Amino acid sequence: MVRSILLTGYNPYRNAPDYNPTGVLARELDGRRIGKAHIHGAEIPVAVEDAGSAFRRLLNRMNPDAALAMGVAPGRSRLSVERVAVNVLDFSVPDNRGRRYRDRPIRKGGPAAYFSTLPVRPILAALRKARIPAELSDTAGTYLCNFAMFTLLDAFAADGKKGPAGFIHIPQVPEASLDKSGQPSMDYVTIRRGILVALQEIEKAIPRPRPRRSGATP
Amino acid sequence: MVRSILLTGYNPYRNAPDYNPTGVLARELDGRRIGKAHIHGAEIPVAVEDAGSAFRRLLNRMNPDAALAMGVAPGRSRLSVERVAVNVLDFSVPDNRGRRYRDRPIRKGGPAAYFSTLPVRPILAALRKARIPAELSDTAGTYLCNFAMFTLLDAFAADGKKGPAGFIHIPQVPEASLDKSGQPSMDYVTIRRGILVALQEIEKAIPRPRPRRSGATP
Amino acid sequence: MVRSILLTGYNPYRNAPDYNPTGVLARELDGRRIGKAHIHGAEIPVAVEDAGSAFRRLLNRMNPDAALAMGVAPGRSRLSVERVAVNVLDFSVPDNRGRRYRDRPIRKGGPAAYFSTLPVRPILAALRKARIPAELSDTAGTYLCNFAMFTLLDAFAADGKKGPAGFIHIPQVPEASLDKSGQPSMDYVTIRRGILVALQEIEKAIPRPRPRRSGATP
Amino acid sequence: MVRSILLTGYNPYRNAPDYNPTGVLARELDGRRIGKAHIHGAEIPVAVEDAGSAFRRLLNRMNPDAALAMGVAPGRSRLSVERVAVNVLDFSVPDNRGRRYRDRPIRKGGPAAYFSTLPVRPILAALRKARIPAELSDTAGTYLCNFAMFTLLDAFAADGKKGPAGFIHIPQVPEASLDKSGQPSMDYVTIRRGILVALQEIEKAIPRPRPRRSGATP
Repeated sequence: MVRSILLTGYNPYRNAPDYNPTGVLARELDGRRIGKAHIHGAEIPVAVEDAGSAFRRLLNRMNPDAALAMGVAPGRSRLSVERVAVNVLDFSVPDNRGRRYRDRPIRKGGPAAYFSTLPVRPILAALRKARIPAELSDTAGTYLCNFAMFTLLDAFAADGKKGPAGFIHIPQVPEASLDKSGQPSMDYVTIRRGILVALQEIEKAIPRPRPRRSGATP
Repeated sequence: MVRSILLTGYNPYRNAPDYNPTGVLARELDGRRIGKAHIHGAEIPVAVEDAGSAFRRLLNRMNPDAALAMGVAPGRSRLSVERVAVNVLDFSVPDNRGRRYRDRPIRKGGPAAYFSTLPVRPILAALRKARIPAELSDTAGTYLCNFAMFTLLDAFAADGKKGPAGFIHIPQVPEASLDKSGQPSMDYVTIRRGILVALQEIEKAIPRPRPRRSGATP
Repeated sequence: MVRSILLTGYNPYRNAPDYNPTGVLARELDGRRIGKAHIHGAEIPVAVEDAGSAFRRLLNRMNPDAALAMGVAPGRSRLSVERVAVNVLDFSVPDNRGRRYRDRPIRKGGPAAYFSTLPVRPILAALRKARIPAELSDTAGTYLCNFAMFTLLDAFAADGKKGPAGFIHIPQVPEASLDKSGQPSMDYVTIRRGILVALQEIEKAIPRPRPRRSGATP
Repeated sequence: MVRSILLTGYNPYRNAPDYNPTGVLARELDGRRIGKAHIHGAEIPVAVEDAGSAFRRLLNRMNPDAALAMGVAPGRSRLSVERVAVNVLDFSVPDNRGRRYRDRPIRKGGPAAYFSTLPVRPILAALRKARIPAELSDTAGTYLCNFAMFTLLDAFAADGKKGPAGFIHIPQVPEASLDKSGQPSMDYVTIRRGILVALQEIEKAIPRPRPRRSGATP
């Protein structure tokens, strides 16, 4: 049976318009096969309202077995597998619709947080084996990236889905760091290699359907 | 007329034995042609005495028109074109011979410092145009890297050479940063691309010989 | 009516034995009056089992109206008012009993996280007014500090307490940063001033008892 | 015989107008006695032309036996005793006269650099003993601070003065770091204590006059 993994990245942020490597990567890997899973890649707008409806639409249409969202974390130097998403929107800069939230819940009445259901330790071990700098992160922030992770995990929980879902932050790419003195970066090729490694572990973690008993009927 | 550029990198440091990308790159580019210049690439031992005699030997044998030394600067996130080398050895860790110097001049009676004679601004502009993160650095430290830069500039000055000489620090490569939480890195391909860009500017800065007057004799 | 605020700091960590400013400060402020509240200051052992029973004992004995736990965050440069505590123990170094936990819940079956119930924004505004560098932090880590915050909020929730509870991380003090190249610090006097400012806001946030209606009987 | 030490700090920078702790400290310590030396404290304008003439005037009028210049290094977390001043002006922001220099020598024809003639190691040892975070720095930058250090050392060299001269960078003070997320700071009291410790070592390093032979007259 073919499985599906939803892979999302973000559109460019409006103050850094040229390029968001996560959106590019999500589109590039769209349609690709990882193990028995089909990747459905999608670019998400950098705005709470639009991102919320984009995630809902994608989840409804695809009904994916697993989901990995990606976003850029300027200032970080390695792939950051996020441990936890919190139920809060608190922006230091506006989103692409110009909206700025402060201390607002993502879903009123929702839980304070969700832990990633990705195979976090196997992903980190596989990245290390592939010699790609990676780390476990304890905060995905309170901007669009945390919003993506919380939204996916909240939807998976609502639907009773058992498959893995979560978020990986990537560093800025070198070509977007030219004017940011001291900002670390990671090239697209290494990022891409790392995300493929992570997707392999995610594919392995998709629950297998129980084998039907053969010859059960007389 | 063929010109020559000496390009040096370092051997692996004894506490990080696997790999020093600058030594690998110097060897890889050995024999390559850049414009009208021939690259002579060499790997230098990470020890003051051995490095000193290696530089002297290379300079005597090759009599290069220009020289670029490279070394790794763990913790830096971009190519660092060094502005100045100071006449001091002050080590926080021993070199590969186990020697540790403190507040010692590189050459007793030598000047306090030399400024790089590389075309620093054109190199930075060309790197920017190539979209490779780079910066001008005001200190090459007081370890082997500063030693390399001071030694080359001191030798060029002693020989009355007018050609460009200096130093570029490179970030650690990703595969050597696996256990260094938060350490920035730059992949070998980007580093290599950046050094080739710098070498092109260095080649252009080699003084052209005065054309001989034709028919000067009566 | 006299209210009470539990104020805790930690004992010295066994690899930094001399001094933990948070434990010293908790003891120093023990017995002090802030507004209508009495401060009960206590030093907590840096070990999960011992800290857990210390918090339970203090909460049972004192039945405090509010609680503020403190701990040192080496590497941070300002007072960090924590937003959220997560239900996880994941240690990169052992605690003072030599135990090291990995990806373990603090309370099995407990919620993924609690948000601070401190008056976080008024505390930040008051610290700013007092010209003390402070920030809102989105992670208290996964070591003893996060454990303290989660444990207090979990106990307040279990007891149906409406009073404020939470955590403030403080920078290392200068005298403990001598050998840590580049580590930021904050002097004890500024830390102490900042914690007193925070306690004033916490005291104001303790719910006032409803005034009894006078002449309520017919 | 009374000795004199010139102690300088800077005026507020025009984009941070309230307060420059180095200027305040230079004025505060003006007139103070350290050992056998009299401190002459002065505040210097943050502009190359004005600072240059201020230093010349002070040196001519006072003819000091030693000189210590101070300036703020935003982003540094400890007292930085500078090792070397370089003969260059290269500004990323204009000075208070609005002038911005690029790759210009401080004194045309001057040496590339001067090493500090302060008793650098005794100062660092004394600061450590006083439990004040300090470090040896290999670059004073290329802005007004490096200009002060180079100018003092150049003047001492021109006059054949044997006394110690140099520069110490101090961190930003907490109250000036309120809006600078993550910027380290050091409180004025600790800075002041550290500079007094340094001045004591500087005073000890002033060359003593040769004792006259007694009984030289018949």
